[in-house]
Amino acid sequence: MQPHVDLITLGVADLEAARRFYVEGLGWTPVLDVPGEVVFIQVGHGLLLSLWAAEALAADVGGDPTTAPAGMSLAQVVESEDEVVRILDRAAAAGGEIVKAAQRADFGGFHGYFADPMGFHWEIATNPGWSVTADGRVSIVPIGGDAD
Amino acid sequence: MQPHVDLITLGVADLEAARRFYVEGLGWTPVLDVPGEVVFIQVGHGLLLSLWAAEALAADVGGDPTTAPAGMSLAQVVESEDEVVRILDRAAAAGGEIVKAAQRADFGGFHGYFADPMGFHWEIATNPGWSVTADGRVSIVPIGGDAD
Repeated sequence: MQPHVDLITLGVADLEAARRFYVEGLGWTPVLDVPGEVVFIQVGHGLLLSLWAAEALAADVGGDPTTAPAGMSLAQVVESEDEVVRILDRAAAAGGEIVKAAQRADFGGFHGYFADPMGFHWEIATNPGWSVTADGRVSIVPIGGDAD
Repeated sequence: MQPHVDLITLGVADLEAARRFYVEGLGWTPVLDVPGEVVFIQVGHGLLLSLWAAEALAADVGGDPTTAPAGMSLAQVVESEDEVVRILDRAAAAGGEIVKAAQRADFGGFHGYFADPMGFHWEIATNPGWSVTADGRVSIVPIGGDAD
């Protein structure tokens, strides 16, 4: 498992309040803005900040939300489903807890979550809608889940 | 206030457990490792993950730790003390709450914290020990606080 963070997700109780602060208040331009759902903002080379409804984040993580230390998670975007599985195995072997086994994700990728021994959540995911230019700009397009 | 995150700090109840997981378990090599105090790991272009004792983070933030949503904070490293002050003012004008006014920091820089309307903490800091190479590698050297 290589040390990289590609996405920082803040689980927010009020998405519109979060948007007012970051987008209107601070003037940060979203990379992708899906009203009522999620706001992505570029905050570094290959790095996005995601504002997501806290309950949506909790539901996506699964597991027992009361044991999560925070309404946030860190994510790695990786190349293949095998890599998702290998990294979750590696994290478990290192003492992490698998809170969501590797599986198809609603956004069209394949993902799972582990908690580190302190309880911080990491998502490991493929994401067919994610790409990064050589100078570090991320584009993320909604792919959507299974249509059936 | 430009949209960038330079440092993700996880406040950990047990620093040695955190080190065992990330450094020994996952095999991530620290950029700077101060036993008993803090571990910094490079996780992106110009981006460090910091493992820091939860009580040290809470003490550094100041304010009322019970209102913090999480034992974590996001940080921006900026160029000047004026910029720290301007950004905190901007965040307050946008609806953020100043939880630590701009002031000299123990690590030798100048910093302050605001909370966004959801309660997430952002540190805005100068750091004379922080530098980033053109290819994004961060070096961080301990400067120490005032000796007097």
